[in-house]
Amino acid sequence: MIMLEQYDKLLKRMKELRVIGQIAQLLGWDQQVMMPKGSVMQRSEQQAFVATLAHSKQTDPEVGKMLKKIKEHPDYDTLGYQEKRNIYLIQRDYDRAIKIPPEFVEEYTKASVISVEKWKEARTNDDFSVFKPYLEKMFELTKKYANFLNPDLPAYEVLLDLYEPGMTTEQYNKIFDPLKNATVELLEKINQSGKKPDLSLIRREVPLELQQKLSIDLMNLLNFDMDRGRIDVSAHPFTGGEYDDIRITTRYSLDDFTGSLFAVMHETGHGCYEQNLPDDLRYQPIGNYCSMGVHESQSRFYENIIGRSKSFWWFYLEKFKELMGDIFSDATYDDFILAINAVQPSLIRVEADEVTYNLHIILRFEIERDLFEGKIKIDELPEVWNKKMKEMLGVNVDKISNGVIQDIHWSGGSFGYFPTYTLGNVYGAQFSAKLVKDIPDWNVKLEKGDIKSLTDWLTENIHHKGNLFDPPELVKEVTGELPDPKYLIQHLNDKYSYLYGF
Amino acid sequence: MIMLEQYDKLLKRMKELRVIGQIAQLLGWDQQVMMPKGSVMQRSEQQAFVATLAHSKQTDPEVGKMLKKIKEHPDYDTLGYQEKRNIYLIQRDYDRAIKIPPEFVEEYTKASVISVEKWKEARTNDDFSVFKPYLEKMFELTKKYANFLNPDLPAYEVLLDLYEPGMTTEQYNKIFDPLKNATVELLEKINQSGKKPDLSLIRREVPLELQQKLSIDLMNLLNFDMDRGRIDVSAHPFTGGEYDDIRITTRYSLDDFTGSLFAVMHETGHGCYEQNLPDDLRYQPIGNYCSMGVHESQSRFYENIIGRSKSFWWFYLEKFKELMGDIFSDATYDDFILAINAVQPSLIRVEADEVTYNLHIILRFEIERDLFEGKIKIDELPEVWNKKMKEMLGVNVDKISNGVIQDIHWSGGSFGYFPTYTLGNVYGAQFSAKLVKDIPDWNVKLEKGDIKSLTDWLTENIHHKGNLFDPPELVKEVTGELPDPKYLIQHLNDKYSYLYGF
Repeated sequence: MIMLEQYDKLLKRMKELRVIGQIAQLLGWDQQVMMPKGSVMQRSEQQAFVATLAHSKQTDPEVGKMLKKIKEHPDYDTLGYQEKRNIYLIQRDYDRAIKIPPEFVEEYTKASVISVEKWKEARTNDDFSVFKPYLEKMFELTKKYANFLNPDLPAYEVLLDLYEPGMTTEQYNKIFDPLKNATVELLEKINQSGKKPDLSLIRREVPLELQQKLSIDLMNLLNFDMDRGRIDVSAHPFTGGEYDDIRITTRYSLDDFTGSLFAVMHETGHGCYEQNLPDDLRYQPIGNYCSMGVHESQSRFYENIIGRSKSFWWFYLEKFKELMGDIFSDATYDDFILAINAVQPSLIRVEADEVTYNLHIILRFEIERDLFEGKIKIDELPEVWNKKMKEMLGVNVDKISNGVIQDIHWSGGSFGYFPTYTLGNVYGAQFSAKLVKDIPDWNVKLEKGDIKSLTDWLTENIHHKGNLFDPPELVKEVTGELPDPKYLIQHLNDKYSYLYGF
Repeated sequence: MIMLEQYDKLLKRMKELRVIGQIAQLLGWDQQVMMPKGSVMQRSEQQAFVATLAHSKQTDPEVGKMLKKIKEHPDYDTLGYQEKRNIYLIQRDYDRAIKIPPEFVEEYTKASVISVEKWKEARTNDDFSVFKPYLEKMFELTKKYANFLNPDLPAYEVLLDLYEPGMTTEQYNKIFDPLKNATVELLEKINQSGKKPDLSLIRREVPLELQQKLSIDLMNLLNFDMDRGRIDVSAHPFTGGEYDDIRITTRYSLDDFTGSLFAVMHETGHGCYEQNLPDDLRYQPIGNYCSMGVHESQSRFYENIIGRSKSFWWFYLEKFKELMGDIFSDATYDDFILAINAVQPSLIRVEADEVTYNLHIILRFEIERDLFEGKIKIDELPEVWNKKMKEMLGVNVDKISNGVIQDIHWSGGSFGYFPTYTLGNVYGAQFSAKLVKDIPDWNVKLEKGDIKSLTDWLTENIHHKGNLFDPPELVKEVTGELPDPKYLIQHLNDKYSYLYGF
């Protein structure tokens, strides 16, 4: 009896932490989307206050005592899986939090708010120098943060595990090496195929209002609940919030509507995951999302498995043409499908095709690894970046906003996050292989415009499982196997050999 | 020495409270402007958490002890005016806060977030019934709140003093009675003048984009710092935030651009007051705004004394015509001035002319007073409202969204706030009489487009004084006299006898 009381009290504290987290997320969303640039110092005070408050609630010695009491209680073993998983997650986060001094939380949060603003400025003005000292600071602080968490492990290993429980450099190598090889092979075959997508088809100017209409149409189509979310514009597309308040962003380019189209489908995938987390586990640690990798598996699933599929466009192309007025009236289905799936090494990760995308991630992974090993310095980043882009993708970086400062992540201290994108592709392809077994005619359904059968499957199998399992176990729970890159490789080979005819 | 240490510690706590207040304001702004309607319960949890946190910080017994130590310290008298004023304000708010149970803060905040949403819904659907139970609840809770603060005073008196220190029903009567009489007299003269403004001139359709351009132009012109603020759209125009993050809102009507034009000038007045609060007193209680009445004096000054003046339009009309394309190319200066100053009893307070505006306020004041005296009930409000509108303004309410639910205030529990608007008019006219003495040629300056001389005068004389004085003392400090409605009456008589030629 006393144990369950303690448990309920503990969960109540966790709920409070989540409410604080929601407030922090809104402050962050607002910074990216709404905040006037002159109020960055004020915002940094607000964010630091909220982060410090969350930290002090999380590290309250009472939490430690309650955990101990529950775990040492003679009835502990009578608890079910869900209760034990909650306790495990609370203990894990508590053990992490108490290693971080509160002053550090304040310093890190303030620095990160300011650094993100400097990144925006640098990106707008194509000027690395205004951002460099802040990036250096965030890099140093992030290393320090990792060392607080575990001084015995290399900082990068600590960070990898933070974003994706259980992941290490070695584990990532096991995934990235075969994927890199397969990608290089596939790229060669695509080149040799001689088939050239007609890119002019998708480089036509599309007025902003039409692109905005398209965004809303896609979100509705993908079963995003517009009463519990919204879409806006930001320098870098992202998704924020949880449960009933999910905010996605995109950015529009007049002469490339596909940039926003796929960003919207990607972020809608993140958004639907959050909107569909299990209602009955709300505010419990097990009711949260599983990991960043699983999050990315959903966004990449919505973007690629659905959004770049032949089946989706089989029914949607006509609707799309109608929405766009006369702009695409001459586009044939085959040309359109090939154009939106054109494999072409390019500069911007979030706009990359499905095949070269993973090279962008592996490039960032290698740079992060070398940064943390001290092999390269922050001020060498632009040079290293450009060289690697040439080597791995064969492209020349024209300006720094298309180069090393294209992504927001490092500006906020998110080193070690990028690899989860490719992990998301790996999980996503594996989920989709299972989906084919569960709903063999899912392609036919999709061709008829029945997206709900697919998203319902994702909701039931992934969204509703919240954080009941660590990522590998979730993948096994859903597919019967541990994560394996072979499904992604298979998916890419099948899809592109068909499209490029080899 | 020890006393000053205590004082500094106290101010640090006050700063924290202000940061929390900023977060609460952002949550509130977001609810009005951005929040998806489905997340109202989530937002109510967030707001309740923040309000309860602020309350617990404010009522921390340590604060009481620190105040006591400082005041009983032998060196207390060596403190300067500013320090003593800070201590006075902290003590006042502490004494108030400790009377409110934390559970009540939570209940009140949650109820208010939900009630505001229900008000929005009722306004959109012209349906009082969906709002009524929530309004009833807010009314009951607000009475309870007032009773916590002072069970020995009638609730309405407590609330009046809360929004405007020192104000009572009796005091308001002393202002409202002569103003009401003067207004009725003036309205008669205006009617008898036989002069009829050509309202068709300002009822022309103006596309949204042009109205938005106009808003930005006006905000810049009035020296609002766009790097430290923004403008958006909401159901009811308002201003939120402080210091470097000031957000104003407006609402656009295609066939009446003046609604938004004057709303923007009004909110810009609020916004500039906040942006220009004294930098060196930031986050101290004395660095806050003085009162709602003084706040309204600034907004109504920007809106009326500047925005509806002959001098302003002497230079701005041509610029305005240019901005508006061909829509107003035939408008003459005299006709335009008369049209935007047309005195015509109407339904909507925020769109009322300068003369009838105060009748809208007196009507609300009388209804609030009768509500709190139990003479009328919430469900009689629509009927009472419509009857009073007929009696005082001679107009028939066509639908409830143009009637008793036009304003947001009561939905959030702000009973007793309305009278401060007219108080703002009273202060504003008195400030303007002093301005004529200080800058005798201010009209000539304004005619030349020099708005900065005026806004600088306001900044120096009012904005920079923060909350160094209670409102009557501030008015005396600025003008040499205590607040007196004669200046407003004089202003209205002078202006409208000239415009209407009597």
